[in-house]
Amino acid sequence: MNSFSSRLLEQCVNELSRLPGIGKKTALRLALHLLKQEDLTVSNLANSVTEMKEQVKYCKLCSNLSDKDVCEICENPRRDRRVICVVSDIRDIMAIENTSQYNGVYHVLNGIISPIDGIGPGDLNIDSLIDRVQQEDVQEIIFALSGTIEGDTTSYYIFKKINDYSIPVSTIARGISVGDELEYADEVTLGRSIMNRTPYESGIK
Amino acid sequence: MNSFSSRLLEQCVNELSRLPGIGKKTALRLALHLLKQEDLTVSNLANSVTEMKEQVKYCKLCSNLSDKDVCEICENPRRDRRVICVVSDIRDIMAIENTSQYNGVYHVLNGIISPIDGIGPGDLNIDSLIDRVQQEDVQEIIFALSGTIEGDTTSYYIFKKINDYSIPVSTIARGISVGDELEYADEVTLGRSIMNRTPYESGIK
Repeated sequence: MNSFSSRLLEQCVNELSRLPGIGKKTALRLALHLLKQEDLTVSNLANSVTEMKEQVKYCKLCSNLSDKDVCEICENPRRDRRVICVVSDIRDIMAIENTSQYNGVYHVLNGIISPIDGIGPGDLNIDSLIDRVQQEDVQEIIFALSGTIEGDTTSYYIFKKINDYSIPVSTIARGISVGDELEYADEVTLGRSIMNRTPYESGIK
Repeated sequence: MNSFSSRLLEQCVNELSRLPGIGKKTALRLALHLLKQEDLTVSNLANSVTEMKEQVKYCKLCSNLSDKDVCEICENPRRDRRVICVVSDIRDIMAIENTSQYNGVYHVLNGIISPIDGIGPGDLNIDSLIDRVQQEDVQEIIFALSGTIEGDTTSYYIFKKINDYSIPVSTIARGISVGDELEYADEVTLGRSIMNRTPYESGIK
């Protein structure tokens, strides 16, 4: 792919192929697609990328992405600010919000402790969580981190840090997914789901 | 995915997900990736897209993409302008150029006759090819179109149009790919490759 007849096309393909998961061939396909679109469609794309980069902020309370200094969730008076759900990534907030099962606020760590990737506790938003625990009226901390060694390590590290403040700390339940067959579940998950069994609710009242 | 905490992020994700092969999830991944990059990286991307869209031209001779009115290939005095290779897409030019086996010029049809997709001869750059045949000193036309019914139909349509000018017309060879096992080749290709067999060259001189 060294035979571009247009330097502008080549430059655009090079820039697009810097994006994760987009190779030279896909970048070329995207560039040729853009050339066939209306001028407005292309300028909308370019402008929305630029505007987002220039104007998006991180919520100064929970580090969620926001258009304002404080995000919509932290600002919402109907959310229970005494319950903080700790997540590693902004996408986890979206996933939990989509369940409509949670009414507290969040705290985004922006990563997870992972020595292999060179990510230590100092690289995460842990200090700001401690600050919130110290300064706000926090009634519960919920860890919603992935069920990996890194997730467990991060939960444990934060647990040790906030242990002194005697706040109830919980973690999201691990167990068999809804709709899963028992025989295909791995033994660690199945073991945990037996250990952490919950009272049976028939749904008939 | 209706729980964006930032309208700017949502807008950028919507614009990115208009690109072919990029769904909402991938668009979100790309947007969050861009947010983590340097300002310069993001503005380079946005600018290169805008510049390409605003400034790239189609070569007025062959419809190849170009930064100038006439593309590098048509302009190159070392290329044989008497041989025209007819391709359906700009990417085909790149593919042929990468072989370094062709020294003529091109003509981009910008599509292929396909009644199912509603593309007729009038939608393609066929008239401009006829003009070139009439006005220039053309010694050979080579069809390099895909080996599908649509490709064959297009070749045949153009052949009928330029038949009166008594110019030699050829088409790229169909046959077994280099490195292919005979037993896995389909019978049509194998049949054609027997019919269009070429004199054996041992390579020893």
